[in-house]
Amino acid sequence: DRPFTVAGRTFNSRLIIGTGKYKSYAQNAEALAASGAEIITVALRRVNLSDSSQPMLVDHIDPKKVTFLPNTAGCFTGEDAVRTLRLAREAGGWNLVKLEVLSDPKHLYPEMEETLRATKLLIEDGFDVMVYCSDDPVYARKLEDAGACAIMPLGAPIGSGLGIQNPVNIRLIIEAAKVPVIVDAGVGTASDATIAMELGCDGVLMNTAIAEAKDPVRMARAMKHAVIAGRESYLAGRMAKKRYADPSSPLAGLI
Amino acid sequence: DRPFTVAGRTFNSRLIIGTGKYKSYAQNAEALAASGAEIITVALRRVNLSDSSQPMLVDHIDPKKVTFLPNTAGCFTGEDAVRTLRLAREAGGWNLVKLEVLSDPKHLYPEMEETLRATKLLIEDGFDVMVYCSDDPVYARKLEDAGACAIMPLGAPIGSGLGIQNPVNIRLIIEAAKVPVIVDAGVGTASDATIAMELGCDGVLMNTAIAEAKDPVRMARAMKHAVIAGRESYLAGRMAKKRYADPSSPLAGLI
Amino acid sequence: DRPFTVAGRTFNSRLIIGTGKYKSYAQNAEALAASGAEIITVALRRVNLSDSSQPMLVDHIDPKKVTFLPNTAGCFTGEDAVRTLRLAREAGGWNLVKLEVLSDPKHLYPEMEETLRATKLLIEDGFDVMVYCSDDPVYARKLEDAGACAIMPLGAPIGSGLGIQNPVNIRLIIEAAKVPVIVDAGVGTASDATIAMELGCDGVLMNTAIAEAKDPVRMARAMKHAVIAGRESYLAGRMAKKRYADPSSPLAGLI
Amino acid sequence: DRPFTVAGRTFNSRLIIGTGKYKSYAQNAEALAASGAEIITVALRRVNLSDSSQPMLVDHIDPKKVTFLPNTAGCFTGEDAVRTLRLAREAGGWNLVKLEVLSDPKHLYPEMEETLRATKLLIEDGFDVMVYCSDDPVYARKLEDAGACAIMPLGAPIGSGLGIQNPVNIRLIIEAAKVPVIVDAGVGTASDATIAMELGCDGVLMNTAIAEAKDPVRMARAMKHAVIAGRESYLAGRMAKKRYADPSSPLAGLI
Repeated sequence: DRPFTVAGRTFNSRLIIGTGKYKSYAQNAEALAASGAEIITVALRRVNLSDSSQPMLVDHIDPKKVTFLPNTAGCFTGEDAVRTLRLAREAGGWNLVKLEVLSDPKHLYPEMEETLRATKLLIEDGFDVMVYCSDDPVYARKLEDAGACAIMPLGAPIGSGLGIQNPVNIRLIIEAAKVPVIVDAGVGTASDATIAMELGCDGVLMNTAIAEAKDPVRMARAMKHAVIAGRESYLAGRMAKKRYADPSSPLAGLI
Repeated sequence: DRPFTVAGRTFNSRLIIGTGKYKSYAQNAEALAASGAEIITVALRRVNLSDSSQPMLVDHIDPKKVTFLPNTAGCFTGEDAVRTLRLAREAGGWNLVKLEVLSDPKHLYPEMEETLRATKLLIEDGFDVMVYCSDDPVYARKLEDAGACAIMPLGAPIGSGLGIQNPVNIRLIIEAAKVPVIVDAGVGTASDATIAMELGCDGVLMNTAIAEAKDPVRMARAMKHAVIAGRESYLAGRMAKKRYADPSSPLAGLI
Repeated sequence: DRPFTVAGRTFNSRLIIGTGKYKSYAQNAEALAASGAEIITVALRRVNLSDSSQPMLVDHIDPKKVTFLPNTAGCFTGEDAVRTLRLAREAGGWNLVKLEVLSDPKHLYPEMEETLRATKLLIEDGFDVMVYCSDDPVYARKLEDAGACAIMPLGAPIGSGLGIQNPVNIRLIIEAAKVPVIVDAGVGTASDATIAMELGCDGVLMNTAIAEAKDPVRMARAMKHAVIAGRESYLAGRMAKKRYADPSSPLAGLI
Repeated sequence: DRPFTVAGRTFNSRLIIGTGKYKSYAQNAEALAASGAEIITVALRRVNLSDSSQPMLVDHIDPKKVTFLPNTAGCFTGEDAVRTLRLAREAGGWNLVKLEVLSDPKHLYPEMEETLRATKLLIEDGFDVMVYCSDDPVYARKLEDAGACAIMPLGAPIGSGLGIQNPVNIRLIIEAAKVPVIVDAGVGTASDATIAMELGCDGVLMNTAIAEAKDPVRMARAMKHAVIAGRESYLAGRMAKKRYADPSSPLAGLI
């Protein structure tokens, strides 16, 4: 396998996990260890990174050992997102970031016009920008042309656990992309992650699927294996499906 | 996790692989090692177990280290199957066996009346019988009542790689069974195995999915992780799916 | 289109509806009219056919205009089923019947050994027997060999509304059958019926999908169109699916 | 049912068909009659509307009886599309139009930034604009806010026949829209149309599914019934699905 490289950094694990909805930072850290992930994404608006009078993530997960990927969850305009990431860079020196510009709280889909605009602003400003986006192949291409270092299409609404809804779009994005494609949002169970990787994705990001499992640490371990399984399966090249239709019957091609 | 136990024998791996369609016994052995499987099923009618003037499976895979599971692939009557297994027991001492009694070569589905009859004959004769069967929950119950030590419903036609066609039936079989349930036939890719395990199966048996992958050894490794991922995911308990339907709209419950 | 003929009787409509779970016989009759069905199946153990002190089905639906198809719903042994149908023949002269021999009340799947046995008894006794059965192509063949005049595999558990779970099996049954194949059980909504017919079924039988819709009469009308749509679509021969995979990429054939 | 009204015009049929890929205008006219459609969409760049030395569509389909809906298929910029529709209005007086601004010829997905821009230009210019768009609910809302008189999300790539890939997105668009939502592109067979309508769409537009069926006229008739079936089924309100999971088992909610 070729290494998984984003913005010049190379990782062994193709799984990225989050920091929301865990019972505690301690549980989050335990899940991280079980998952084997080397990148953890941190919602700048929700995670305590600086107030040492309160529990802090960094007391449990060491940013020298794990790549922190700040994200702009909760931002609904490009300006908000850009401001949030600039503050984070000043405070923590983070340059590799994940951009999210959301639209309607009902489904938390990305606002793609704003997302593209903010991507351009951040790249001008020197950031390496991984971008949460819709699964529209046309916009994925625009983000790459604008300089995004990773394309992160949603598989289904954030927090829905519905699995990849549109494998055709994910595949079209992968076929056209020269930067890593990481499915972000929608994974609900291990097989969803395996399916994402079998489509040829470079990685998978998930939060709720682990944090809201009955046993989050065990599910984190499941996801570690699921991502490896999907990657290896993709590289191995699956057998052809056989249809058992009599080619001379009107049923041929029906199924 | 509770151990995976069949007929009193306990295994760490929940994956069973086959011995058909490999380029050579050497490749088969390499795939076995990559898969982590501890049981290998051997078609008594196709695999050379005794003619030392020809390449022999046992020169590559050591029956002292790996459990050989003789099967009756290619048998179309109960008598055939019973005779084949008796000869094998006399020759090799194998008592734990996998019964297959096939019907039409077009789809290789089991002949369930003959299968049940042969199961009873073999059990009377002292065998521990794992049984390849349709996914009919009624017949699965009959096989268990007759004394089968494992129920092995097909997920899809042998060699089709179509994945599990009827998860409802597999689930009904699992809910009712007190002996292990092992999906046998139909797996085509890693996510199919993960899905089978997420349904609560105790194990998965596959042959073509590994042997006919472009890189069989790599696919064997994928399957090792896929089975672990599915088992851990099942035990961890997945998050609830969220539907995003407005409960007051006529769409609620549609999807 | 060739006519839809069962046991020598020819029908214009390929939809068969039931008599259970309606609010009243009047509503049942209205749904029948909206559905365009010419056959209605009648559970001999549940429908009042003879006690004129109570509401009677025949006061609302005229057996001279609509073919009554007596069925053995609620019978759990072959003897029960045979006795029930003999009584019905003596009382009403019905010779064309639908056999159901059920197993576990949890899923109401047919008991196939008993079903096959009862089929043979009824045929010896001069009945024309349409048979509710599992979707096992091997048993479908046995029923046809025994003289069944229609094969009626389930699409999903009775009353589940889950739609056809295993199109591969339904297709295998259709390809092998010389008598009509009618999907019986599992349809939940109009598109399920269309899909059944697109597979090449000769007809569809449903009860709950209509009777438990919010507006049963309207759903009956939907089903009329759904069955015609599926039949015409099957006969018209659908366009080929296009996959958009770059044939030179490792994704080809993945989706 | 409430009437199907677009830009103040009311129609009985909720099916819109196209004018591409037919063997002849005569066959197109025959398919139109069989389909019951009252709107036919006409690719201004491909269909001969004015050169009377060649076969003309209007010799076969009377624009006084059928609503012609000019579309901009083949336009890859907003300017192209706007210019094309202005010329058409001058020539034929058409004010109700369907806008398509495409991106990559590989998948023919809409270019949504250009599409939104062109929508605004056309509305300023007095057109009633129905808009072919991606299934992104955020963009669907923008188009409606800009004044589009119908939102026409794709179900799958044009000409693919893959059926609706993302019912979640189509449903989110429908729940939020106050103008008609018409699935445009992706239907391959009758059940695909039924499914689209069961989601609550106001209508379906298709071309290849009819024109490339083996028997286009018969498939047109199938589609007429499929759309009615789906609409009636949606209005009738389907039965609840039943899952048969033992609620006390770890399988509950898995399927």
